[in-house]
Amino acid sequence: MRMVDLIEKKRNGFALTKEELVFIVDGYTNGDIPDYQMSAFAMAVYFQDMTDEEITNLTLLMAKSGDMVDLSGIDGVKVDKHSTGGVGDTTTLILAPLVASLGIPVAKMSGRGLGHTGGTLDKFEAIPGFSIDLTEEKFLESVNRLNVAVIGQTGELAPMDKKLYALRDVTATVESIPMIAASIMSKKIAAGADAIVLDVTVGDGAFMKTPEKARRLAETMVRIGNLAGRKTKAVLTNMDEPLGFAIGNSLEVVEALECLKGGGPKDLMELVYTLGAEMVVLAGKASTTSDAKNQLKEKIQNGEALQKFIEMIMNQGGTTDFIEEPEKLLTGKIKKEVLSDKDGFVEKMEAQTLGIAAMKLGAGRSTKEDEIDFAVGIVLHKKVGDPVKIGESIATIHSNREENSEIEKMIISAIQIGEEKKDVELILGII
Amino acid sequence: MRMVDLIEKKRNGFALTKEELVFIVDGYTNGDIPDYQMSAFAMAVYFQDMTDEEITNLTLLMAKSGDMVDLSGIDGVKVDKHSTGGVGDTTTLILAPLVASLGIPVAKMSGRGLGHTGGTLDKFEAIPGFSIDLTEEKFLESVNRLNVAVIGQTGELAPMDKKLYALRDVTATVESIPMIAASIMSKKIAAGADAIVLDVTVGDGAFMKTPEKARRLAETMVRIGNLAGRKTKAVLTNMDEPLGFAIGNSLEVVEALECLKGGGPKDLMELVYTLGAEMVVLAGKASTTSDAKNQLKEKIQNGEALQKFIEMIMNQGGTTDFIEEPEKLLTGKIKKEVLSDKDGFVEKMEAQTLGIAAMKLGAGRSTKEDEIDFAVGIVLHKKVGDPVKIGESIATIHSNREENSEIEKMIISAIQIGEEKKDVELILGII
Repeated sequence: MRMVDLIEKKRNGFALTKEELVFIVDGYTNGDIPDYQMSAFAMAVYFQDMTDEEITNLTLLMAKSGDMVDLSGIDGVKVDKHSTGGVGDTTTLILAPLVASLGIPVAKMSGRGLGHTGGTLDKFEAIPGFSIDLTEEKFLESVNRLNVAVIGQTGELAPMDKKLYALRDVTATVESIPMIAASIMSKKIAAGADAIVLDVTVGDGAFMKTPEKARRLAETMVRIGNLAGRKTKAVLTNMDEPLGFAIGNSLEVVEALECLKGGGPKDLMELVYTLGAEMVVLAGKASTTSDAKNQLKEKIQNGEALQKFIEMIMNQGGTTDFIEEPEKLLTGKIKKEVLSDKDGFVEKMEAQTLGIAAMKLGAGRSTKEDEIDFAVGIVLHKKVGDPVKIGESIATIHSNREENSEIEKMIISAIQIGEEKKDVELILGII
Repeated sequence: MRMVDLIEKKRNGFALTKEELVFIVDGYTNGDIPDYQMSAFAMAVYFQDMTDEEITNLTLLMAKSGDMVDLSGIDGVKVDKHSTGGVGDTTTLILAPLVASLGIPVAKMSGRGLGHTGGTLDKFEAIPGFSIDLTEEKFLESVNRLNVAVIGQTGELAPMDKKLYALRDVTATVESIPMIAASIMSKKIAAGADAIVLDVTVGDGAFMKTPEKARRLAETMVRIGNLAGRKTKAVLTNMDEPLGFAIGNSLEVVEALECLKGGGPKDLMELVYTLGAEMVVLAGKASTTSDAKNQLKEKIQNGEALQKFIEMIMNQGGTTDFIEEPEKLLTGKIKKEVLSDKDGFVEKMEAQTLGIAAMKLGAGRSTKEDEIDFAVGIVLHKKVGDPVKIGESIATIHSNREENSEIEKMIISAIQIGEEKKDVELILGII
């Protein structure tokens, strides 16, 4: 078999057999197939797509290209949750203790963020003392005892994907549905959960710019997951504005805390209940999502979810004084209000621009080596559809730098104010 | 400027500006742009094509990526001829002395063949003693004195093309009209001729499988040539059967000799007169192609073309005893007749299969390092449309090996005999 013939076959629109995909995954993983052939292949896939069978074979082969995590030491149905990327996405901080409070094991392995804002690990580390470096033994013991623990990814999950993603990133072959599906699902399958709930984001700042493409991606991933023996559901969510109000690590921890105390932004809680209900049903603790939602709401109302959050933090060495005094986490030296220069209604909030503004403040990484400043970020005061008056504060910048005028301009340009009152629907579908 | 953004722009179907193409050609030539980005770009071009302006800019930039040959030391209009690839293509051996006999300077720089059969250089070297290693001074002096000389390519013509072609060859991105046009025309423009006649082949064994695609390639190259200030014409020719009867280096020299003596296969002479007439008109020695054809025919009939061939060979150190005794060149130890196993008419002769069969005998190279056996090859005895009887010889194998049964099978499979008498048209159009 020769790689050039397989590139040509895909280029001409034919489906590759499992044996041919084995040749590609093995060859690329061990270095026999060079980057210049793989990138031409990825571009051919971009134009010619893949069949469901091809994507499933590719995903499983990529999952098996490295370590496969064994979670069989944990009792019960292990449910994982994954988002294809959002700005101000605080859901995992809330969902982990909330779902665990229902007796469902949450064995969360997370990565660091290489996007605009920090990843889930970075957000947990914004809690002073919190350690994500548990031994495997301590991790499994914690989940069995508390139903919840969060650690950094261990071992080498889907190394083929890591290598391929780096290549796709510099060859304009990222936005390919089969490639995105295989990339996400290979890692999820290797990570060992029994069931997977996917949050597939749509909009300006997401991989998928249109609901149609996002739906196709979601359907593809759900099918792959189920074919691979992992019960899988997907929720399509609108990313045309950031989720909740907070963008930035400590700011999002404080926002998650508000949610667990029974407050919090309406859109964020809607997504938490929607994703959480799918997790509870997949775990077999409810037969309908409405029953599951009621159970979740009760755990918020009776304080057990918050209690689980505290137990989880203490188990991993974190301080909990911020639970009573959240301002202890908000150590940014400068708070600058961003004032509206117009009367009207918020028509759009560009999630991507706001995410980049937060990154420039220090809340995210532009390269792997960047250090995150947990304290900084942006707190929005409006959502799409809200009325605004000239001179009213639309956002607060939390910064550790004197000069923030560039950030202010970015925020003003990202928040579009017009005359029309628009409604935004957050949940676009469940697959 | 970043290469990844240019790949994405092309992938999304937009035309690149001249500045962007400068970035790509410079970057790839000097190694700043890696192969894995260039191959993804080539695949994007395969799917999204290029505008005429893009192809012209790319071609001129590629031509200027290396040495530009200066033929200004030769008087008169220098006309070059190029074929996009044929099997048994003996035209240059005939056209060089024939056109020169009309007083038109033929300063021929040729490459070696890396196809099924030898290239033009290999065919001239099949004449014992013939040297293609002339100094530049001797080359120019020869053309001024005799109107004709043939040398191997000197200097580094279009190194960007050389690097890119090697990459396209292993990434299934060869069959792209803009890339083929830029590849051929960049070398022709760098080679310094004032006018260019292109033989664009169509069919099974050619780059372009359909007349429509070949026409588009021909039109593109003619436009580029003219925009670059080189008068350019293209002849579309059918490659569904080999040209003439001979496939193999010495065999083709003998066939060329027959042609120059006034004999030779009808199809080969038709192509020689068609291409030759375009060259003569571009050189300003005739105002119509029919006038040009008459002048060429006269030079064959009065023996001046043959005389020019002899002068050219003597000037480059070759022996000429084969002119009177052609069999002196035919030194293959074994001659094996290939007999028809059917009655009927020849319906098809797969040029590519016959070319590969000749290569396997030793007439061509499968890698750059292979040494060519000039004496071996295949002489066909039929053309498409000819009647055949069982047991009649349809071809003669000239070999230096005892065992030729595989070659015999290839020849029999390549020559399809049916009940219908088909006509083949050689010249499909002139652009």
